[in-house]
Amino acid sequence: MKYSKIKELLNSDKAGFDVVTRGWVRTFRNKQFLALNDGSTIHNIQCVIDFENTPEEQLKRITTSAAIQVEGTLVESQGSGQKFEIQVKKFEILGDSDAEKYPIQLRNRPSLEFLRENAHLRVRTNTFSAVMRVRSILAYAVHKYFNEKGFFYFNAPIITGSDAEGAGEMFRVTALPFDNTPRTEEGAVNYREDFFGRETNLTVSGQLEAETYAMALGQVYTFGPTFRAENSNTSRHLAEFWMIEPEVAFNDLNDNMDLAEDFIRYVVKYATEHCADDLKFLEQRLLDEEKNKPQAERSEMALLEKLNFVLENNFKRVSYTEAIDILRNCKPNKNKKFQYSIDEWGADLQSEHERYLVEKHFKCPVILFDYPAKIKAFYMRLNEDGKTVRAMDILFPGIGEIVGGSQREERYDVLVQKMKELNIPEEDLWWYLDTRKFGTAIHSGFGLGFERLVLFVTGMTNIRDVIPFPRTPQSAEF
Amino acid sequence: MKYSKIKELLNSDKAGFDVVTRGWVRTFRNKQFLALNDGSTIHNIQCVIDFENTPEEQLKRITTSAAIQVEGTLVESQGSGQKFEIQVKKFEILGDSDAEKYPIQLRNRPSLEFLRENAHLRVRTNTFSAVMRVRSILAYAVHKYFNEKGFFYFNAPIITGSDAEGAGEMFRVTALPFDNTPRTEEGAVNYREDFFGRETNLTVSGQLEAETYAMALGQVYTFGPTFRAENSNTSRHLAEFWMIEPEVAFNDLNDNMDLAEDFIRYVVKYATEHCADDLKFLEQRLLDEEKNKPQAERSEMALLEKLNFVLENNFKRVSYTEAIDILRNCKPNKNKKFQYSIDEWGADLQSEHERYLVEKHFKCPVILFDYPAKIKAFYMRLNEDGKTVRAMDILFPGIGEIVGGSQREERYDVLVQKMKELNIPEEDLWWYLDTRKFGTAIHSGFGLGFERLVLFVTGMTNIRDVIPFPRTPQSAEF
Repeated sequence: MKYSKIKELLNSDKAGFDVVTRGWVRTFRNKQFLALNDGSTIHNIQCVIDFENTPEEQLKRITTSAAIQVEGTLVESQGSGQKFEIQVKKFEILGDSDAEKYPIQLRNRPSLEFLRENAHLRVRTNTFSAVMRVRSILAYAVHKYFNEKGFFYFNAPIITGSDAEGAGEMFRVTALPFDNTPRTEEGAVNYREDFFGRETNLTVSGQLEAETYAMALGQVYTFGPTFRAENSNTSRHLAEFWMIEPEVAFNDLNDNMDLAEDFIRYVVKYATEHCADDLKFLEQRLLDEEKNKPQAERSEMALLEKLNFVLENNFKRVSYTEAIDILRNCKPNKNKKFQYSIDEWGADLQSEHERYLVEKHFKCPVILFDYPAKIKAFYMRLNEDGKTVRAMDILFPGIGEIVGGSQREERYDVLVQKMKELNIPEEDLWWYLDTRKFGTAIHSGFGLGFERLVLFVTGMTNIRDVIPFPRTPQSAEF
Repeated sequence: MKYSKIKELLNSDKAGFDVVTRGWVRTFRNKQFLALNDGSTIHNIQCVIDFENTPEEQLKRITTSAAIQVEGTLVESQGSGQKFEIQVKKFEILGDSDAEKYPIQLRNRPSLEFLRENAHLRVRTNTFSAVMRVRSILAYAVHKYFNEKGFFYFNAPIITGSDAEGAGEMFRVTALPFDNTPRTEEGAVNYREDFFGRETNLTVSGQLEAETYAMALGQVYTFGPTFRAENSNTSRHLAEFWMIEPEVAFNDLNDNMDLAEDFIRYVVKYATEHCADDLKFLEQRLLDEEKNKPQAERSEMALLEKLNFVLENNFKRVSYTEAIDILRNCKPNKNKKFQYSIDEWGADLQSEHERYLVEKHFKCPVILFDYPAKIKAFYMRLNEDGKTVRAMDILFPGIGEIVGGSQREERYDVLVQKMKELNIPEEDLWWYLDTRKFGTAIHSGFGLGFERLVLFVTGMTNIRDVIPFPRTPQSAEF
């Protein structure tokens, strides 16, 4: 017996033959019209049951989320909104779903918050199945892009003994007990007795390790989980998230910006071409959600229009110094509407400033570059002016920072000097410094938060809704 | 200025034009012949330096691993073993490499152990650059296969509050301090004060979460890091490794075996087609390594022959019960050559037994299935005999277990009963049990250790040599 996926059946080029398919009930109307979904597509196939010749107790078992196998004839459909439907000859309930206990009552429009508490079931809804299919296609596009460009996939270590980057608070990984913890004679925790013989943490970035690989394989990228133990309960932060980090030997900051733009455009285009149905559904979802909001809070563009805008328009490249000039003289700054007013060069930009630049001033994605050295990481290349570094951030409307990158400091002496100033011990990063000792060359890279990309492409508004099982402060269920 | 990758130059269909390329020096002979590599291919391009018109101090800087930019004419080569070489007009040292300090003296054949301690530089050798390119291509093949088959990529959580699977010892993830650890009134560690408000660990498998997704999207797969805090200092174990876990609704154990075989064959074929040069090099490396071994310890087949064998021969499917019969009656068992003798049905197979079956008896990959319930995990489907479960392990020559999988117990009552017997609290897995309450259906999946696959395809013999920065007991440098 050959089983067909619902996607295949709906895309069939003919009808009039017998099929068998399996899936879960989405709705069942008038004891006759069963909408069946198997996850292969956002669309359900309508299965028409011969209810007059079906025992009542069988019909009663066709409830939302019941698993069912259907045999019948694929025929052209008149009313279901689809090209084809199944005239059912026989069906079998594989697994019941008690309608009075099933947590998700689809017709009651459960809130996203409620669905988050049922993250193991929410993927059975149209919204989350669409989001997760788009997420999957975007991930595939990431690998496809880099593969076509001759990059090599590099798996950075997740558990790391290196905590020198200072990108944020880290989670400790340990096999030591809290009770009777081994101690040194001085009373400190004796990490020599821990599994790895040293203190270890979850990685915040694979960049430093990726640099060592770029200096041999030329072009590499990571795509893996990274972690931040920051107590940020916002709609844009996760404690565990997936990051993409390309690193390229011989690239300068301009090459790096070109790569980031080309990459983002490629994966967004791939999604629009391969998830058209899901994106159409998500566009309508967003419109429905925003109906009840005041006009000023609604998105200026519909979802697909927004994605096409990114495909068709270059990102605006603006130096930090230019950005500060714009911000210093803008209305909200003069009228004290910013929480943090911008008074002078050197200020760290807050989310409100980034949003002003992207959403109000330029009204398009913006690449800010050449930031003050003082507000950026130690490994970024110092410019000739001695005060700015070759850093870049890409800011997206509605999302904020989606990419952070830089040309790396390739000069051994300059790097060591910078580490000294910041009290980063050389012995912790001996291997990183080796790349500058032996055959150093300019190189650049960036990190893109994958969930922020998925947020942007799906039009969802909370980052917890674009990863299967979100990890946030006080929450690690499942 | 357009820079060319060395791979492009060597694959050029014509010569006689000017090129610019960059890379790292592999060797420099007779002040004239510079072998340059940029990581794009195992092959170096020969760059012929006009040494008579080059100052001596410049020539002296052409040392192993120095970064260099070369401009010249691509010409047909007579002697370099390659089709093309570069007649150099101009070169520039981008980054020096002090020959007296560079840890890897390529010509002295550094040991794999020494290179492991220099994991940040070992990828600059032919062996490790080949291994890591093959690893990257295999990873791409994994995504390509599942994408073509309509699977969705599912990111299982890495930090998990669920420790019910009992697949091995876990690493604790915590933000609590060892000093002045918050305690409950009873004196226990108060995990409510930890970052996630509960005790959390690093995942040992994404399977249980993947099952919840398979029951909505139909076919999903994970490909991410997993962790085991086991003190196993062997050439086949890592504390941090990458695992691939497909999970498919409506698949039974036979479908599962078909999927695993088809999948493995696809990715191995993809590697032979897309990494031919690297694999040829690795085949020779293995031959060289084995030259000094006694005949009995050498591989029976050369690397490519072995890979083709897997492509051309079905895996042998053998029930556990048949395997026990074979083992009980085999010579090594009768002659007490096994460390653990096989006396009766129910015995857990050790590595020595698996190797006997695969390497001596069947001489091909073997799928063992229908194991005793007592030696397998709680979630595997009980057979009608009441004592075996629908489990399968795939055993590979030289590698041992490369895949472990099963049809899952889809019957709520049977699953709950099994959890009771094993003292697994239902409240810890309420969400997992929900999949059996609401629209349950048969489903199956497996886990494939990615590094074991890379070991097999590259012919390397220690798993620490096929992952960039291995994590093992007492070792988490870099």
